[in-house]
Amino acid sequence: MRIRVDWRTSVSVLGTILKILALPLASMAALALFYSEPLVPFLVPFAGSLLAGVGLERIERDEPGPREAFLLVASAWLAVALVGAIPFVLAGQGTLADPVNALFESMSGITTTGATVVGRFEIHGRAILMWRQVLQWLGGLGILVLAVGLLSELSVSGAQLMETETRTQDVTKLTPRMAGTARLLGGLYLGLTALLAALLYGLHLLGPRIGVPDLAPEMTLYDAVAHALTTIATAGFSPHAKSVGAFSPAVQWVVVVGMFVGATNFVLLYHLSRGDTTRIRDSEEFRVYLGVVVGGALVVGAMLVLDGEYPLGEELVRATLFQVTSIVTTTGYATVDFDLWSAGPRHVLFLGMFVGGMAGSTTCSIKTLRWLVVGKTFRRDLFTAVHPRAIKPVRLSGAAIDEDTIRDIYAYTLVSVVIFGLLTVFVVVDASRAGVEVTEFGAMGAAASTFLNIGPAFGFAGPYGSYEPFPDSTKLVMVVMMWVGRIEIFPVLALLTRSFWES
Amino acid sequence: MRIRVDWRTSVSVLGTILKILALPLASMAALALFYSEPLVPFLVPFAGSLLAGVGLERIERDEPGPREAFLLVASAWLAVALVGAIPFVLAGQGTLADPVNALFESMSGITTTGATVVGRFEIHGRAILMWRQVLQWLGGLGILVLAVGLLSELSVSGAQLMETETRTQDVTKLTPRMAGTARLLGGLYLGLTALLAALLYGLHLLGPRIGVPDLAPEMTLYDAVAHALTTIATAGFSPHAKSVGAFSPAVQWVVVVGMFVGATNFVLLYHLSRGDTTRIRDSEEFRVYLGVVVGGALVVGAMLVLDGEYPLGEELVRATLFQVTSIVTTTGYATVDFDLWSAGPRHVLFLGMFVGGMAGSTTCSIKTLRWLVVGKTFRRDLFTAVHPRAIKPVRLSGAAIDEDTIRDIYAYTLVSVVIFGLLTVFVVVDASRAGVEVTEFGAMGAAASTFLNIGPAFGFAGPYGSYEPFPDSTKLVMVVMMWVGRIEIFPVLALLTRSFWES
Ligand SMILES: [K+]
Ligand SMILES: [K+]
Repeated sequence: MRIRVDWRTSVSVLGTILKILALPLASMAALALFYSEPLVPFLVPFAGSLLAGVGLERIERDEPGPREAFLLVASAWLAVALVGAIPFVLAGQGTLADPVNALFESMSGITTTGATVVGRFEIHGRAILMWRQVLQWLGGLGILVLAVGLLSELSVSGAQLMETETRTQDVTKLTPRMAGTARLLGGLYLGLTALLAALLYGLHLLGPRIGVPDLAPEMTLYDAVAHALTTIATAGFSPHAKSVGAFSPAVQWVVVVGMFVGATNFVLLYHLSRGDTTRIRDSEEFRVYLGVVVGGALVVGAMLVLDGEYPLGEELVRATLFQVTSIVTTTGYATVDFDLWSAGPRHVLFLGMFVGGMAGSTTCSIKTLRWLVVGKTFRRDLFTAVHPRAIKPVRLSGAAIDEDTIRDIYAYTLVSVVIFGLLTVFVVVDASRAGVEVTEFGAMGAAASTFLNIGPAFGFAGPYGSYEPFPDSTKLVMVVMMWVGRIEIFPVLALLTRSFWES
Repeated sequence: MRIRVDWRTSVSVLGTILKILALPLASMAALALFYSEPLVPFLVPFAGSLLAGVGLERIERDEPGPREAFLLVASAWLAVALVGAIPFVLAGQGTLADPVNALFESMSGITTTGATVVGRFEIHGRAILMWRQVLQWLGGLGILVLAVGLLSELSVSGAQLMETETRTQDVTKLTPRMAGTARLLGGLYLGLTALLAALLYGLHLLGPRIGVPDLAPEMTLYDAVAHALTTIATAGFSPHAKSVGAFSPAVQWVVVVGMFVGATNFVLLYHLSRGDTTRIRDSEEFRVYLGVVVGGALVVGAMLVLDGEYPLGEELVRATLFQVTSIVTTTGYATVDFDLWSAGPRHVLFLGMFVGGMAGSTTCSIKTLRWLVVGKTFRRDLFTAVHPRAIKPVRLSGAAIDEDTIRDIYAYTLVSVVIFGLLTVFVVVDASRAGVEVTEFGAMGAAASTFLNIGPAFGFAGPYGSYEPFPDSTKLVMVVMMWVGRIEIFPVLALLTRSFWES
């Protein structure tokens, strides 16, 4: 076998990524110093990633092709997850001291999943808890850069989706070069994070001054930054066991808006930030995304009222809209333990896991754009089935989508659903083998929530629970599935084919 | 709104179908006479379908187009299900006397599903029990005629699948005209049914003569015919509560072979019957189908041995191969209550429900051909993702499949899986609303088993159970889903679009 992939280039770029990773690790060391917490957990991976990064970067690199990009993407998420786990192991506290748990938490972080194995939050240091948040923010940034700057040059499902967007929404016209676009959207991501942190902390400061002391009393600067990081990244980690439920109604409303914005196409947000509202009004995907959130909330709300869970009022609207937005945007925060709801609303949330927010954002799951294309194509095919001579392209926001792109979207959606099904069966059977009691619905939720990078599930892995009780074998498979799901399946599966390496 | 569908033609052909239906109803009346059971349950629908049939047939008919064919297919299955339910209601015994149950049983019959609401089999007359079997055989015949003679002229998923087969296996070359092909395969279907009945009854007669009295002591002529009818139709009704478990090992082995043959492409069987073995040896789909059955049996068998369910031996092999073949071929017979097995083998059976036998047979579910195309296309797309300039068609048994067909197969598979998911959620939520206790896995099984036309599920709807405890609302939705699933979704969904009726 002769390897024809230019792996040296991939490894060299990976070196740059590891070098960059040293910066947030150094910041966490500084934070630990500030809080008088141990520095070693951060200094060791800092030194390691800096040295490895500088070393690997020296390898001569060429212009990367599709294969080199696949290899880079797959190895980057894996490498950062491994380095990211080191602080948890070295801190050595609670469930996170266990290497499997540490890797799970780290992969859940960098993939913006938000499934946690933390048992008791209060025993961990503030820097360690902030590291979870930072990992997620970095993961969101990575996805954004990937979506615009890299994947769009490759001819795969996720890519052609971006191509579709490119065609219909002129991503490429934002700036002449992809790298420029990526930098621009990265800046927007940073700006939105800062804005949200300022808003949240602002509420905290404002409360006592306007005579409303319980406006946001718990939202300290630390928590404002921590939650801003994982809201815009639609990622969902919180340093609190009760998630956003630990904060006031005002904070919860701000976070609802933040999650909704975080799962909106960043190209639309960019135009919006420049005062151009036509793009967002013309976007069919945005209307579907908004419709799913509002429609889902109406259905869940009606069910909760029928169940007598809440009286009509602000609390009902907030609880419903928060949980539905959190799941549909794939954030995974919670303000109530929705695992205690009845079968109806729990199952609507479960279905919501498969939707996801808009393409071109940090959202995970299948994404509304894909479902929109699937639905439109299916409608078209019903039409052409009875009008065989008609030629009718599928149009998105006015522009025709080519049939190859449609096929790739079908493939991606189908493969996602099939992998979810197989993972569910694995979780049930593996838990039963290991003697861990998992309900079928708990397994379905955990499979969807990890593979689709949402976070909380049902049963012991519910929004106020933890994935810790799953057997190690299940947790390790979930680590792999979070990784595979976040980078949109193809890069990992391609690595498993012989033709990837050889021909 | 101006209706542009030539519904008169559809209704006229439906008249012919109802006229033909009078013949089996008359036969059941004769059987009732033979067993001194009430004749009225059969004479009323006999007279009704004969009169309605002759009357409707008089409506002038034109050459049917795609729309008229869709309308015909959808209304034919529905009309026969309604007429087929009349004997159960008029016989007025047990659970079947209830109209909802009667319709469920009849639809389960004509769609070759085999999900039953019968509580106690022994209280029903022999003619009524045989009517269930006959409905299934007619349903299987309908599907065979449809697959070859009708659907292949239409440009829908199921159709293009047959087209694919046409191209790769020369269905059209069997005889110059489609009608001729349909007649030929219908004859083969009848011949195989007769052969199987003769084999089963032959075992019964042979036993005492060769000094092996327990070769097949219970396999009377009645049971031989009853099971031959529902084996070749991969349908699964049995007049016995214990299904094929009521019979000897020898009978079970014959039935395994019968089910396997019933889910094999009838074009291949036709060539085989003429001594041509090359077709079957060259068929990639056959190899996959065989592989799924053997592979599934090996996995289930290994799990059962680990569970200590059976010692190594003939009983293990038979129990495993029977249950796996029954599920994969979508027949739905059982020889053991597999609902009592542990999570592992039960979940493998559950996954097996989604496979199905070969296209061009009476099998239901998604079918191996579609999965084969999905798998090959996915592999091809992984290849072209890393080799963007390569042009590589997907080949099946050597011939290239066109991309439109591939897209339709993806669409069909995805829509099936999505409908299954939504149906599962409906079953859980509706049961919880009605206060009927259904486990999540029970709901998953029942949803898959009805929509994919398999028959038994898990929990109270297990192989030795009944669907009777489900609320009426759930049962009526399942009636619709069996109907939608059996005629491959598109004809019913197309009827729901406005463009079907108007433009
Ligand atoms: K998440
Ligand atoms: K069946």
